[in-house]
Amino acid sequence: MTSQEIFAQIKKKASFLCVGLDPDPQRIPKHLLKEKDPVLTFNKIIIDHTIDHAVAYKPNLAFYEAMGPAGLETLAKTLEYLPEEVFTIADAKRGDIGNTSRLYAKAFFEQMNFDAITVAPYMGEDSVGPFLAFDGKWVILLALTSNQGSQDFQLIENKEGKPLYASVLEKSKTWGTTENMMYVVGATRGESIAEVRKLVPEHFLLVPGVGAQGGSLEEVAKYGMNNQCGLLVNSSRGILYASAEKDFGEAAKKEALALQTDMAQLLDSYCK
Amino acid sequence: MTSQEIFAQIKKKASFLCVGLDPDPQRIPKHLLKEKDPVLTFNKIIIDHTIDHAVAYKPNLAFYEAMGPAGLETLAKTLEYLPEEVFTIADAKRGDIGNTSRLYAKAFFEQMNFDAITVAPYMGEDSVGPFLAFDGKWVILLALTSNQGSQDFQLIENKEGKPLYASVLEKSKTWGTTENMMYVVGATRGESIAEVRKLVPEHFLLVPGVGAQGGSLEEVAKYGMNNQCGLLVNSSRGILYASAEKDFGEAAKKEALALQTDMAQLLDSYCK
Repeated sequence: MTSQEIFAQIKKKASFLCVGLDPDPQRIPKHLLKEKDPVLTFNKIIIDHTIDHAVAYKPNLAFYEAMGPAGLETLAKTLEYLPEEVFTIADAKRGDIGNTSRLYAKAFFEQMNFDAITVAPYMGEDSVGPFLAFDGKWVILLALTSNQGSQDFQLIENKEGKPLYASVLEKSKTWGTTENMMYVVGATRGESIAEVRKLVPEHFLLVPGVGAQGGSLEEVAKYGMNNQCGLLVNSSRGILYASAEKDFGEAAKKEALALQTDMAQLLDSYCK
Repeated sequence: MTSQEIFAQIKKKASFLCVGLDPDPQRIPKHLLKEKDPVLTFNKIIIDHTIDHAVAYKPNLAFYEAMGPAGLETLAKTLEYLPEEVFTIADAKRGDIGNTSRLYAKAFFEQMNFDAITVAPYMGEDSVGPFLAFDGKWVILLALTSNQGSQDFQLIENKEGKPLYASVLEKSKTWGTTENMMYVVGATRGESIAEVRKLVPEHFLLVPGVGAQGGSLEEVAKYGMNNQCGLLVNSSRGILYASAEKDFGEAAKKEALALQTDMAQLLDSYCK
């Protein structure tokens, strides 16, 4: 998928919402547990009720691996169920020596046909490069994450006062292009997104941490939006668990619609 | 498993060899392809022929995920086949926000009963902590890897001239203990192992990069061994693909025995 195709979806739906498909078997509505594959049923209902308001879906692999081999079947079936025009992200945070990264890339891009995978930068260029070798596929590299622990290493400054996440952005943007590389940038600090934009003005950013992790959508748009939108903002728990009852689909739709309504206004204000 | 139990194995077998179970379906001997599960058969034969000379086994998850859901079944069966006294490492290089890391930990420590998992440090303490909450289980944190890309970020110096990998060691050693934390330290530079040992004198180190990736076993032992050995040195391709014919088991044994023979001498020289 090209950035133009992503932007076309964003304009069509007036949304830059990414739904995190992180189904916790402990938290999905009890009445689904009698289904043959409760998580798949849950995912399908969430997708049905959010597809009009979301441009991307992001299953986190941990939730599926935690279910054993059957979990990967559920993931594959979830992916098949998603319409072709939405952008699909394997939130896997992989990264290994070259030969091994190549195998992960094949698993996620060829066998499962994801459009994108999140990758951890610690092992450097040859751990990321193999993911960039697939036409129309994307690496979404961790730059500045939204969790507390992001402060442990990502903010360490080098001799010139440049934090590690800025070194990651500067080096890695030469490895790929704005057509195969995006960055994970947490929404917890608006100014940080402004700093990131100075270094990568044109790349798409995947922004977790709005909602349950506590960032402001307004700030993200104000500091992060470019003339192609350039943002995918993720919400997982706020949508998935809006209700624990039989109405969870409608409740998810209501949450997604509320976010999309805000996003439509922000696109009007800042996407110029 | 405790460090004492690992050291007892090391003394018993006069070996600190870890065998990387990274079976590439393209490279396993052709006559196995008629088997129902060629990779499982391959793994079992490799295990049978190396078990007298190895104290640990380390399957890299990429090789199994690349086979789809069936690959995880093969991995689970491989793990069941390994005798209880060997130390088992899921080379998965995971790391995510707290709740998600917890799911990975459950998948690898409870469902699959691995003794250890490799973890990437980029997301900091709350991404690593959940893996440390399991009694008798180990985190093996990436510190200094053996690939070319290790130079991109791991060697960036902070204002005091301390490279990132040293910050990772210093901070993370307070998160766990020498009974639940080890470090991945590449064997490509002997002096680096000496630097690492100044910061973590007592922790076990998992050392890849001997053999195919080109490090010297002698240097690793000289600079890295402590009075509990404190080393697990991994070899994958050199053992697995010592022969592409029907004698691959015997050829693997010969390679493992050669490494173990060297290791026995190094234990005599440096484990004091």
